[in-house]
Amino acid sequence: MSIFEELESEVRSYSRGWPVVFDRAQGSRIYSEDGKAYLDFFAGAGALNYGHNNPYLKKALVDYIQRDGVTHALDMFTVAKRDFLETFQEKILAPRELDYKIVFPGPGGANAVEAALKLARKVTGKESVINFTNAFHGMTLGALSVTGNSMKRGGAGVPLVHATPMPYDKYFDGAMPDFMYFEKLLEDSGSGLNEPAAVIVEGVQGEGGINAARLEWLKGLDDLCKRHNILLILDDVQMGCGRTGPFFSFEDAGISPDIVCLSKSIGGYGLPMALTLIKPELDVWEPGEHNGTFRGISPAFVTATEALRVYWSDDELEKSTKAKGERIASTFKDLVERYPEANLVAKGRGLARGLEFANGDLAGAVCKEAFERGLLMETSGPDGEVMKLLPPLTLTDEELSEGLAIIEESIAAVLK
Amino acid sequence: MSIFEELESEVRSYSRGWPVVFDRAQGSRIYSEDGKAYLDFFAGAGALNYGHNNPYLKKALVDYIQRDGVTHALDMFTVAKRDFLETFQEKILAPRELDYKIVFPGPGGANAVEAALKLARKVTGKESVINFTNAFHGMTLGALSVTGNSMKRGGAGVPLVHATPMPYDKYFDGAMPDFMYFEKLLEDSGSGLNEPAAVIVEGVQGEGGINAARLEWLKGLDDLCKRHNILLILDDVQMGCGRTGPFFSFEDAGISPDIVCLSKSIGGYGLPMALTLIKPELDVWEPGEHNGTFRGISPAFVTATEALRVYWSDDELEKSTKAKGERIASTFKDLVERYPEANLVAKGRGLARGLEFANGDLAGAVCKEAFERGLLMETSGPDGEVMKLLPPLTLTDEELSEGLAIIEESIAAVLK
Amino acid sequence: MSIFEELESEVRSYSRGWPVVFDRAQGSRIYSEDGKAYLDFFAGAGALNYGHNNPYLKKALVDYIQRDGVTHALDMFTVAKRDFLETFQEKILAPRELDYKIVFPGPGGANAVEAALKLARKVTGKESVINFTNAFHGMTLGALSVTGNSMKRGGAGVPLVHATPMPYDKYFDGAMPDFMYFEKLLEDSGSGLNEPAAVIVEGVQGEGGINAARLEWLKGLDDLCKRHNILLILDDVQMGCGRTGPFFSFEDAGISPDIVCLSKSIGGYGLPMALTLIKPELDVWEPGEHNGTFRGISPAFVTATEALRVYWSDDELEKSTKAKGERIASTFKDLVERYPEANLVAKGRGLARGLEFANGDLAGAVCKEAFERGLLMETSGPDGEVMKLLPPLTLTDEELSEGLAIIEESIAAVLK
Amino acid sequence: MSIFEELESEVRSYSRGWPVVFDRAQGSRIYSEDGKAYLDFFAGAGALNYGHNNPYLKKALVDYIQRDGVTHALDMFTVAKRDFLETFQEKILAPRELDYKIVFPGPGGANAVEAALKLARKVTGKESVINFTNAFHGMTLGALSVTGNSMKRGGAGVPLVHATPMPYDKYFDGAMPDFMYFEKLLEDSGSGLNEPAAVIVEGVQGEGGINAARLEWLKGLDDLCKRHNILLILDDVQMGCGRTGPFFSFEDAGISPDIVCLSKSIGGYGLPMALTLIKPELDVWEPGEHNGTFRGISPAFVTATEALRVYWSDDELEKSTKAKGERIASTFKDLVERYPEANLVAKGRGLARGLEFANGDLAGAVCKEAFERGLLMETSGPDGEVMKLLPPLTLTDEELSEGLAIIEESIAAVLK
Repeated sequence: MSIFEELESEVRSYSRGWPVVFDRAQGSRIYSEDGKAYLDFFAGAGALNYGHNNPYLKKALVDYIQRDGVTHALDMFTVAKRDFLETFQEKILAPRELDYKIVFPGPGGANAVEAALKLARKVTGKESVINFTNAFHGMTLGALSVTGNSMKRGGAGVPLVHATPMPYDKYFDGAMPDFMYFEKLLEDSGSGLNEPAAVIVEGVQGEGGINAARLEWLKGLDDLCKRHNILLILDDVQMGCGRTGPFFSFEDAGISPDIVCLSKSIGGYGLPMALTLIKPELDVWEPGEHNGTFRGISPAFVTATEALRVYWSDDELEKSTKAKGERIASTFKDLVERYPEANLVAKGRGLARGLEFANGDLAGAVCKEAFERGLLMETSGPDGEVMKLLPPLTLTDEELSEGLAIIEESIAAVLK
Repeated sequence: MSIFEELESEVRSYSRGWPVVFDRAQGSRIYSEDGKAYLDFFAGAGALNYGHNNPYLKKALVDYIQRDGVTHALDMFTVAKRDFLETFQEKILAPRELDYKIVFPGPGGANAVEAALKLARKVTGKESVINFTNAFHGMTLGALSVTGNSMKRGGAGVPLVHATPMPYDKYFDGAMPDFMYFEKLLEDSGSGLNEPAAVIVEGVQGEGGINAARLEWLKGLDDLCKRHNILLILDDVQMGCGRTGPFFSFEDAGISPDIVCLSKSIGGYGLPMALTLIKPELDVWEPGEHNGTFRGISPAFVTATEALRVYWSDDELEKSTKAKGERIASTFKDLVERYPEANLVAKGRGLARGLEFANGDLAGAVCKEAFERGLLMETSGPDGEVMKLLPPLTLTDEELSEGLAIIEESIAAVLK
Repeated sequence: MSIFEELESEVRSYSRGWPVVFDRAQGSRIYSEDGKAYLDFFAGAGALNYGHNNPYLKKALVDYIQRDGVTHALDMFTVAKRDFLETFQEKILAPRELDYKIVFPGPGGANAVEAALKLARKVTGKESVINFTNAFHGMTLGALSVTGNSMKRGGAGVPLVHATPMPYDKYFDGAMPDFMYFEKLLEDSGSGLNEPAAVIVEGVQGEGGINAARLEWLKGLDDLCKRHNILLILDDVQMGCGRTGPFFSFEDAGISPDIVCLSKSIGGYGLPMALTLIKPELDVWEPGEHNGTFRGISPAFVTATEALRVYWSDDELEKSTKAKGERIASTFKDLVERYPEANLVAKGRGLARGLEFANGDLAGAVCKEAFERGLLMETSGPDGEVMKLLPPLTLTDEELSEGLAIIEESIAAVLK
Repeated sequence: MSIFEELESEVRSYSRGWPVVFDRAQGSRIYSEDGKAYLDFFAGAGALNYGHNNPYLKKALVDYIQRDGVTHALDMFTVAKRDFLETFQEKILAPRELDYKIVFPGPGGANAVEAALKLARKVTGKESVINFTNAFHGMTLGALSVTGNSMKRGGAGVPLVHATPMPYDKYFDGAMPDFMYFEKLLEDSGSGLNEPAAVIVEGVQGEGGINAARLEWLKGLDDLCKRHNILLILDDVQMGCGRTGPFFSFEDAGISPDIVCLSKSIGGYGLPMALTLIKPELDVWEPGEHNGTFRGISPAFVTATEALRVYWSDDELEKSTKAKGERIASTFKDLVERYPEANLVAKGRGLARGLEFANGDLAGAVCKEAFERGLLMETSGPDGEVMKLLPPLTLTDEELSEGLAIIEESIAAVLK
């Protein structure tokens, strides 16, 4: 392992909790170089909703590479991009009656967010943005300024300005009416709140601790934005592509945000890809006003297209995700009752699930026990106090049972 | 072509100059769906130094995918990353006696720049950065703030602060001694210049107009930074990986910058990948203080590793790049003399070459003529006045001859 | 009146509500050039707590000028400054067991605030400051950034950053526990709130609508700041110098803020003067690090000193202020009851009193009626909905009766 | 002296060089409390152009106070303000054919600058401002951001942004054509310079080291601003009111800036007062959009008006100032020649004069010697290397001779 320690920056993090060298992966399993299999309930932090090296996507990918399909194409027109656009239109936008234009903002989620913020500010002529407590939107300067985590913010090295955090749903456990503070500040011309260009929000906060906003809260936020002429940016980078059941995390709330950010699982196979969806009337950019080298990675378009075809031609995946999510919820409910003194809290929606412990040490200890038992999970939340489950949506019922059993054992080992 | 026009944002740009749909590509050629071949002197804006779908890299890539090597791995330890680190150490760092630690900052060049700026500010406790006239460093908020182009800056929607531009080499055609203004401001405690954390510079400015800094200017900048205790960030995203001849654009200047940004061709095959190289003493990050979903794309590690093995085990590519560059320079010299009234200016180093026209309309017209003759080139410079050549380093002498002939014809058609 | 309209900028405001030319003034009365007397319940927006041209101060002032006492002295040592310092120490600081060093920050309240903010940031190394809804701290860029009024903020022409507004006391009419939101954000490392250097607060918000914080709220704020190691800046520019009864508006809350801003009535006679009081351990400035031309206006020191001697050698003024304040409160209570449908709200403490109307038009109409009856009052609050009383503390009981009678008549004329 | 040391902040500076307690002052003399007379070649840092306690102004002032003229009047209409406006129009604006509207921005020069910057940004919708090396414009956040001195900038505690320094006249001793760098950056759309709302400049830099811009440089700057549609703000706070001869420092350059800042000697007697003069077409403010408590200090209007009547009804003061300035210049020329090894440099215009030494220690030592001989002078320049003369414009020829003799002796004592 010495070349990693010798050459790689101390900023590396996942390798600290899982100190093995991984080599191969298939479906819900990832294998270390000595052949040990790990059940992966982490799934690339949400980038592998269709599992590792999904065979449908793999076939399409290898075929494309074998036939010398163009690999790198910036924002040129390509057959691969056309296939993706047509399929995205047919499988995703049209059935949901969503009217968006598509920006290819760069390879990752932070690019999708940066493009969204730039456009919202350009359109409105305002600089200020409202974000939410415990939000995570990325590490580039614009995205970081709307991210909550203080350690990550501290890395900026410049004051992060232009964003004001508002309480996410349930931040006060119901002690305050939804949006009371936010709307009062907006309506009071003496409040000192800079008039916002946009609100940026996650349907479910992943890094923030698997905080699932109630659908009516999302609807209420959408209404508030409309009342006050504020653009709503929905960051679905981690929670989109079916993670919570429907393709978009906001579908069941009955809203259509002005701007939607997608990345992580949109490429399907784990290759970098991102989209910023924008209402047509917001498409005021000059050609090239936002650009980037890795906006047109055709292999990712190919796997993205295949994933849409295989998994989003019907509602089976959505139903399965919700059903499996309920199984986890049920197990978590049992655990909450089994350990009344531990004050566990079950959180989440669909296959984004969390179990909150009293502190980060406990949650970390459970993940460590699980790792030793062959299960990968990470913690999230401001103090790492939430055990976070993001398994592939394609995992089998047996794999889910296996994982939940390991979780129960691991918790038992820690809480005794 | 309607799905593009219907669904893709107006921000798209390359597709406007090259209104065909590309499908396949091999080496220096890219093919439209109707089978027309184009000689590619654009090469993914520098991301395809080894040509399209390079057969050595393709083989390694397909093998890796076929054997279910892990695809997406964040910053976990993987066999693919270990191979890359060992090979980068052996082929690149060790022979050049360069002592860097490696940050995997995210998938693209902007990520490499954002990480560099964050780290420089964190280490020094200062916010201000010096950039150069006509610099290009990326479109995310931190990278954009050190980029020169006013149209792109205008897209930010917030005032871009913390950066002060200084004149790049030859900005005044020698009318001012190098760094006279910069150093005077630094030495004068009343100058009003915020004390800078870092200087960020490109060895050759690509987007800015193929402005090749003299090596002694780069050396002088490095000396100045050392005298004033300022970190030097060398953005080699476009000009690294052999574009100017040696692996790094700064090698022949005899300097070793504090921080180096690499992306574009580092992955070899056009897949998103980026590195931020940092002097070991700068490695002060907390684990996870900078992160991102697409830091560990193993297929890119695989092709990156193979590219290093194939092309950087000896100095043949470097010699060939310099030789081909000289051929272009020679042709350009002829053109300058052939059209004395056009005031053409030949620019560049290695296989980053530019021919400056009196204005952007002329340069654009030449590129349009070339496209019609089957050659892809883009313009660069603040007004698009520079015809820019970034062919694959692997192009053959015949392809070079063919391309130069088309260029001569295209110029003749425009200048008459 | 034409020279005003011809030459003075449209930014002028008071002259619009009181379109007469004033000439002389004495005590609680100000006279227009045609000899009409106005009872002044505005008192220089709080700068004339001891009335116009107070005879004690006038004598000291004329004597000083007549004997050629130095007028302008920057921060040189002068006899006038020494007298002021000794008297301030003896009459104000020592009896209250307050341990402050004194900065002479420049001539006005905004200078006192700018110096406070600069020092708080310098001491803590943090940029962020917490301000409150409907705060008013001044019009220079630093002070404006912590001011609430959106019209005034809009005048900055640059985004106002580094400040986050929190709800002032009673902002939600008791619907939220004090500081619940603020403290939750501070304690949650994922909240996205930049760690604040300081909190800046007014004991009673004057411009914001005569919002009088409860003393226990101020105490709670002080406790919170201590718990979280945040500096507390008390802006007593308008509410200090006895306006609410005691010399400082915060005395009865039993707190001693880290930094206190004084101006307006500190000079006594209406001449520009300001102080920033700082805890001795905060006195980390370099000589000259903050300076200004008008820090040492000796005539203001002379009248300031005399005011302290005459009015702050015993507690008579404080008692009288409280008693007169109660008289106003009693009248306001009657008015609230007399006009139940008008939903009037009585506000304030000491001789800072407000009567809130349903909207700014009504409050403005009442002030207009009062002006026509010979009484000067202004409106305040975000929409000008509060009729604001800041009479000289030295007004007689008869003058108070006279003024209250005019107010009753004016309200009757408007509400009918 | 103990009460000063005990109670006054360490930020005090002038009292460190002149450790005596001053009491009275008259004309060019200021007296310590023990009766020692000092000849004052410092004159309130330019606030006492008409000398201490000028008898004409004193009489008008005392008369006004005695007759209970209104003292403090915010921006109400007053007889005192009307007299001032009429006189300023008659004596200053009309004869010079200057068409300005007048903003009363607050009591000091920093307020005049803050108002100027706010207005320029509001009118243009741009944030960026160009300032000059070694500029001094004040200590409030907006003014400080365009000030050069690094120690004073460091006091801000927040990054000072939105300003980019350009070289003031002679910054490179003629090695660069005037404005070459500035104009190149403006004309190059790739330069990275944010498009500026305004340029702010002093006609002669006082704090910066008595740097007198050539009149043709000022004219060139004005031309450049017109060419590029940039507002020109002339900060005449220290150099206006006749300091360089004519009332405005820019008159002889034949320009009329868009915005002019006046303070210091505009009040005449040393009382705080400031003006921002704006071209009528810039008067776009909302009523009250910029305000402040000390905008209408009538005693200052009274002495300001009297000063205009007495000193600006003819051109005697201007001629006398120029003549006395030439006398100083002549003496300085002799000194430069007398001490060839000291490399003294004579600087300035009118009665703003400087003698530059090799370093701040020498200049400081000369000022110390002068103080001991009864002459007050301060140093200026980035390292305090310039001995700065700002005597009252009203000093007699004898006083000038006396002062120059002390200077010669003091220099002799230091340089030997």
